[in-house]
Amino acid sequence: MGEDIMAIWDDVIPEEDLKMFAKSKSGGKAGYGKKPAIVVVDMTYGFVDDSYPLGCSKTGWPSVHATEELLKKGRGKGVPIFFTRTGDAKTLAQRGRWKKVPSYAIEESRELDPKARQIVEEIKPLPDDVVIEKFFPSAFFSTNLASLLIFHNVDTVIVAGLVTSGCVPATVVDAFSYNFIVVVPEECVGDRGSVSHKVSLFDMNMKYADVVPLSEVIRYLHSL
Amino acid sequence: MGEDIMAIWDDVIPEEDLKMFAKSKSGGKAGYGKKPAIVVVDMTYGFVDDSYPLGCSKTGWPSVHATEELLKKGRGKGVPIFFTRTGDAKTLAQRGRWKKVPSYAIEESRELDPKARQIVEEIKPLPDDVVIEKFFPSAFFSTNLASLLIFHNVDTVIVAGLVTSGCVPATVVDAFSYNFIVVVPEECVGDRGSVSHKVSLFDMNMKYADVVPLSEVIRYLHSL
Amino acid sequence: MGEDIMAIWDDVIPEEDLKMFAKSKSGGKAGYGKKPAIVVVDMTYGFVDDSYPLGCSKTGWPSVHATEELLKKGRGKGVPIFFTRTGDAKTLAQRGRWKKVPSYAIEESRELDPKARQIVEEIKPLPDDVVIEKFFPSAFFSTNLASLLIFHNVDTVIVAGLVTSGCVPATVVDAFSYNFIVVVPEECVGDRGSVSHKVSLFDMNMKYADVVPLSEVIRYLHSL
Amino acid sequence: MGEDIMAIWDDVIPEEDLKMFAKSKSGGKAGYGKKPAIVVVDMTYGFVDDSYPLGCSKTGWPSVHATEELLKKGRGKGVPIFFTRTGDAKTLAQRGRWKKVPSYAIEESRELDPKARQIVEEIKPLPDDVVIEKFFPSAFFSTNLASLLIFHNVDTVIVAGLVTSGCVPATVVDAFSYNFIVVVPEECVGDRGSVSHKVSLFDMNMKYADVVPLSEVIRYLHSL
Repeated sequence: MGEDIMAIWDDVIPEEDLKMFAKSKSGGKAGYGKKPAIVVVDMTYGFVDDSYPLGCSKTGWPSVHATEELLKKGRGKGVPIFFTRTGDAKTLAQRGRWKKVPSYAIEESRELDPKARQIVEEIKPLPDDVVIEKFFPSAFFSTNLASLLIFHNVDTVIVAGLVTSGCVPATVVDAFSYNFIVVVPEECVGDRGSVSHKVSLFDMNMKYADVVPLSEVIRYLHSL
Repeated sequence: MGEDIMAIWDDVIPEEDLKMFAKSKSGGKAGYGKKPAIVVVDMTYGFVDDSYPLGCSKTGWPSVHATEELLKKGRGKGVPIFFTRTGDAKTLAQRGRWKKVPSYAIEESRELDPKARQIVEEIKPLPDDVVIEKFFPSAFFSTNLASLLIFHNVDTVIVAGLVTSGCVPATVVDAFSYNFIVVVPEECVGDRGSVSHKVSLFDMNMKYADVVPLSEVIRYLHSL
Repeated sequence: MGEDIMAIWDDVIPEEDLKMFAKSKSGGKAGYGKKPAIVVVDMTYGFVDDSYPLGCSKTGWPSVHATEELLKKGRGKGVPIFFTRTGDAKTLAQRGRWKKVPSYAIEESRELDPKARQIVEEIKPLPDDVVIEKFFPSAFFSTNLASLLIFHNVDTVIVAGLVTSGCVPATVVDAFSYNFIVVVPEECVGDRGSVSHKVSLFDMNMKYADVVPLSEVIRYLHSL
Repeated sequence: MGEDIMAIWDDVIPEEDLKMFAKSKSGGKAGYGKKPAIVVVDMTYGFVDDSYPLGCSKTGWPSVHATEELLKKGRGKGVPIFFTRTGDAKTLAQRGRWKKVPSYAIEESRELDPKARQIVEEIKPLPDDVVIEKFFPSAFFSTNLASLLIFHNVDTVIVAGLVTSGCVPATVVDAFSYNFIVVVPEECVGDRGSVSHKVSLFDMNMKYADVVPLSEVIRYLHSL
């Protein structure tokens, strides 16, 4: 976010905290590279739609619509596009240690509905897109995403998706750790919690990624 | 945190957000395994001591003292102990894309002081401990920590260190993704920002780890 | 292999080479742990059956039958079982840089036959087994296998499958690098090339794994 | 290797084996990318010099001299250069499960000599080179090498070093799995065993990398 405009986290981060981050000269701007990719994290019915336990409709659907715009521009510029969705965990080991609704105990859980794992129709993947099944928060952990980005000589990863305090920062931290430049278009992510959403955006912007308005990312893509 | 006691994040997470997390049955308790290890993340002068740009004394020193207690109990029970500190980045590529004080531009930066990368005297590693040099947020990313934990047949990772909204959750997410049970003793972590600290603890407790009082972890270690 | 019995590589490794390995005290015995898992690499029609370009029937089918025996014993002892097969690469990036039959150029290639990626009927996975789709040689690279093994507290990985000079050693090296004890039952692996098969077994046994007769592994499983 | 010239493995791979590889259309040529890096694996006194248990002087020193030539050309073209050497394992867990001379049991072992872990003087790293400490066969496993290559937008990895049947193929397989184009200049690698050396070169060339004369790589670097 620019220095002189309001940031989405302004109402939750107190002045005293901001002083500490200013002391460390955190934040600033990472900028953009020459070869971007778009990674859309978990924009499935299970995470977007409130009728599912983990759905976050209030910010979920708006983030889907913003991502639609992002993808449209990206496709026009030949940007490689990657989606993630949850893998089909058939055993307890595959399901892992998530501290959430215990779907295996509750057989009737809507989480077991196959539609929960389906990417929402509005941003339906096209044949050239890659859909990655993942079991863990990060889109990189135990997937071939890093290899796919290297194949395409990508230097910049634009991260959209759900949720801002979960799989999105996990993906951002890994993209950053692989030394990709990381950009988060603010309107393209959403969360169940309003405070978690804002503070997670703030923390990512301080350390790892540029959290910017979608309009700025659209201008960047246009410039390619 | 227990349901009926105050949690550290109570004053920053609004009721409406809590309802959304309740709907997803997030939180709950992961419990403890049989073979724990302790991972102390970046408790170096550069992160603990306010005279350094990234220091966070206010919560840094108290978290060091709590970690001293944790380590004492752990050592008494033969728990394997791992420390991390920042690797010595001699080139820009090794330094990566951190959005913080540009130490290579500012030669006189205190960040270049070798003491910044030194683990604080109060919790000085002993000969049997392993000190891991890392370049990225997670103690796992591009290190041999996972291999070391497997060597020791560890099933539970107790994470202490700095900072609560940075290297600590990055480490927690990776430990969780490797399917270790993850525990964060609340007093043993600290941050530059008070809100980032509280919200990051909340988010970790909702999804990946048990965020609990140190006294509970001490009781667990005692029971071994 | 024991010191005093013939090893399968005896006719290809010259005396002079053996002296060099003796000087480094390579080889020896790694032994067995308490909690094994079985990993069956790529025993699909495409790799087993000679009617496919990459098939290696001569040693492929015998290795399938030996693996049948291994799995039977393992199942009787509740050993967790993991299979790999090639992922369904829909784009060039997913296909990667394999130096083999260019299936995307040759549309009629039998490699595109879905049966090529199917695990052979003789060792058909059961509902509790996990089938991992992989794109690269190692069963670990960009998969959740390490996490699954940690979930089960595994300390010993028994590797079967195809091919001895390709995906098997890649899997063995990664299992070894994660600090698992690694065992290769000699009859349970196969290769297109007889010399590659023997020399790869020799190299694995010198450095990373115990290459032993299936009968020894069966006795070990029996002892659990 | 070209089709019509003798390959180094011609005297160990029988006709029948070659037919099987021809059937799968393995081998062929991967080619070169636009942005190479050079990775020199473990060219330390402990692996080069026969006075150490793991030394392989006969092919070790010649491979050092060939690598000297490779590095000279690479430096002239601004190619980023990475060296690996064994990390300093202070605990059994860090040492891992190598099936070699048990240095911790034999205190007087020359393996404990610090010079064993030192890169040989002839190819001494310069200040801009990165020296990576590793504990496992691959230069990538639990190191930041992938991140460093991504930082430099590398698409082609030229692998030199020791040994041809150990850390070299482990590094080649990981570079390949990250979707880098991989090239092995034949004269720049060496091994304790003559047959392991030849067969490992053959196997890498069939599947993952172009194994080519150093002169070809020099011409490629010259063309940049």
